[in-house]
Amino acid sequence: MRVLILGGDGYLGWPTAMRFSGRGHEVSVADNFARRRWHTEHSTDSLTPIRSLVDRVEAWQEVSGNEIRTFIGSIEDGEFIDSVIAETLPEAIVHYGEQPSAPYSMKSRDTAVETQYTNVIGTLKLLFAIRDRVPDCHLVKLGTMGEYGTPDIDIEEGFIEIEHNGRRDTLPFPKLPGSLYHLSKVHDSHNIHFACRIWGLRSTDLNQGVVYGIETDESAADERLITRFDYDEYFGTVLNRFCVQAVIGHPLTVYGEGGQTRGFLNIRDTLQCVELAVENPAELGEYRVFNQFTEQFSVADLAELVKRAGAEVGHQVEIKRFPNPRIEAEQHYYNAAHSKLLDLGLKPHMLGEELVRSMLGIIERNRERVVERAILPRTSWKPGELVAEVASEASP
Amino acid sequence: MRVLILGGDGYLGWPTAMRFSGRGHEVSVADNFARRRWHTEHSTDSLTPIRSLVDRVEAWQEVSGNEIRTFIGSIEDGEFIDSVIAETLPEAIVHYGEQPSAPYSMKSRDTAVETQYTNVIGTLKLLFAIRDRVPDCHLVKLGTMGEYGTPDIDIEEGFIEIEHNGRRDTLPFPKLPGSLYHLSKVHDSHNIHFACRIWGLRSTDLNQGVVYGIETDESAADERLITRFDYDEYFGTVLNRFCVQAVIGHPLTVYGEGGQTRGFLNIRDTLQCVELAVENPAELGEYRVFNQFTEQFSVADLAELVKRAGAEVGHQVEIKRFPNPRIEAEQHYYNAAHSKLLDLGLKPHMLGEELVRSMLGIIERNRERVVERAILPRTSWKPGELVAEVASEASP
Repeated sequence: MRVLILGGDGYLGWPTAMRFSGRGHEVSVADNFARRRWHTEHSTDSLTPIRSLVDRVEAWQEVSGNEIRTFIGSIEDGEFIDSVIAETLPEAIVHYGEQPSAPYSMKSRDTAVETQYTNVIGTLKLLFAIRDRVPDCHLVKLGTMGEYGTPDIDIEEGFIEIEHNGRRDTLPFPKLPGSLYHLSKVHDSHNIHFACRIWGLRSTDLNQGVVYGIETDESAADERLITRFDYDEYFGTVLNRFCVQAVIGHPLTVYGEGGQTRGFLNIRDTLQCVELAVENPAELGEYRVFNQFTEQFSVADLAELVKRAGAEVGHQVEIKRFPNPRIEAEQHYYNAAHSKLLDLGLKPHMLGEELVRSMLGIIERNRERVVERAILPRTSWKPGELVAEVASEASP
Repeated sequence: MRVLILGGDGYLGWPTAMRFSGRGHEVSVADNFARRRWHTEHSTDSLTPIRSLVDRVEAWQEVSGNEIRTFIGSIEDGEFIDSVIAETLPEAIVHYGEQPSAPYSMKSRDTAVETQYTNVIGTLKLLFAIRDRVPDCHLVKLGTMGEYGTPDIDIEEGFIEIEHNGRRDTLPFPKLPGSLYHLSKVHDSHNIHFACRIWGLRSTDLNQGVVYGIETDESAADERLITRFDYDEYFGTVLNRFCVQAVIGHPLTVYGEGGQTRGFLNIRDTLQCVELAVENPAELGEYRVFNQFTEQFSVADLAELVKRAGAEVGHQVEIKRFPNPRIEAEQHYYNAAHSKLLDLGLKPHMLGEELVRSMLGIIERNRERVVERAILPRTSWKPGELVAEVASEASP
């Protein structure tokens, strides 16, 4: 199958590209290196010493014998994305090509606008390119569980049947996103749903939970193939951040009460889910939503887990509550459906101390690359609150 | 009160500016003349011979003795909107400053992007300016009933209580917008709701039905004060278009079966509703939604009404079904709540033959200005369908 990976240089995009290439698909990746640029602007970097895209692709060809084509540019450049699609004629597009950070989107007006422009306008231009060039192509879009927020009812997979005044209809699940980034994904979902309803396109929206982990089968084969690993305020996700903190002896930064509960999954399961979605495509005109996570945890649960696993390998891990830079419920009901990918055959890798210990090991080997300055949050959801200063005072 | 009208040169913006000015408020208007530019690009124009903004403001000062300040620029220019708000320090902002046409948004990739960029990014920049300059200001945003689409349940005003698996929550009403323009308004609603939830701003979202009519109390005072009146494919709304067609002897262009049912209101009631919203502001942190229309009609109902009213003043009106350029249900359930503005004191002007006859009279006086070429739809919701040709064959 011809598969195009947008954001194919990223944390998930690069492992996804190798996975499909390794399965014998004809893989192209497009990337504008925005993530590398954002790191440069913040004087931070991936914990893992990742290679340039060209070096990665060469190493992959050496290791696997398979070629991955590369296209350098932005999907918000309509001419670029249109020409990539015209040239590669993909049967499936896996779309990771967005600004993925909530704190980054809340930093300033300019980063908020950059986030919504990149994500919403970029995806809109992509939809036109698909419509005009490859209307049968299956768009597999990475969304986020954060689109739903934390409603006081069970979260369903994209749609909910509502009974109201004696009538019934199945309608899009209401959204309460918690950042301007999460809003951009809600906007995307509405635009993509429309393109399926009106233009007859087909799409699977993968509302993904928080991903953790570093290694995948493909990256383990050669150190040049390792994917990026972010632990900084902007691009690090909570478990990955906690593991880095455990290794460097920094207290685990639990924001507020730590009762914030979310869905989580192993990076290996991200690849499984994307594969399952591509292998079992939506029908023409269909917009379907899968909630892509395997387990629910609270932030406090994860901190305890990292503390236990750390102790087993000799790290003294302290857990500390920090003022929450976000505005979010710190204790709330949370129960989200996630059966559709299991029904397609997903075999989850459950989170346990063994996985955490293996992450701690990889981090240990790259310990000298940790930029400590990038650990504490500096971006407040409320303007004018100096989170970094408050947090600094709270730190040892 | 200091009131800023965004889009204050428009069909509704200009009458709104006069209304608040006439009531003794300190009124400023901002506009980038996008509507005038779009007309120039299509070689069309307002049916009514509107004056330049400066001439209007001068005429208004002559007639009323009141000054209206003007600011020329785009809200999607963040520096511009920030400086206007810093200079005028509004207590209420009435926001009409968006691209308001569904067919225009569906014309091409570029007009789709222009629509979502203007509306979503523009409003996002506005929200930052309010947050940073006038956080207590009440944002009265013109939304559209088209955000809801035509679900098979009763439509509520912005939020709905959902019972699900034995739990209950009141959540945003699910949206099924029917064009890329309507989507932009859904995106705006989500962004504004967020700004109220997280930043504590306050906003009233007026989900307006289809507006008809020309005259308001203020514009009737002097011919130089008349507002624009659009009847073309892009900016004309259905009843206004039918009235022009009746006058020039063109068959009324009913799209498809004509069972499409929507909420409608008189332009005089738009002004009443906006006044009621401004005089009864939302609380700080509150995001409330009013469904702003007074009556529901199907397209076929309106065609019959115009035919009857036209006959009374000597117009032979033919009704003709045209291939529907839009993709929408032509027969559907539709029952939308609209009690909140009535509760605040709205006294509706109901639609009847008298109002239609008065519109026909004004159109008659400007008959020589009608550009017939602009009547038939040329923009299909599906790419590649040549609506204009099909429609031309169907026309006499």
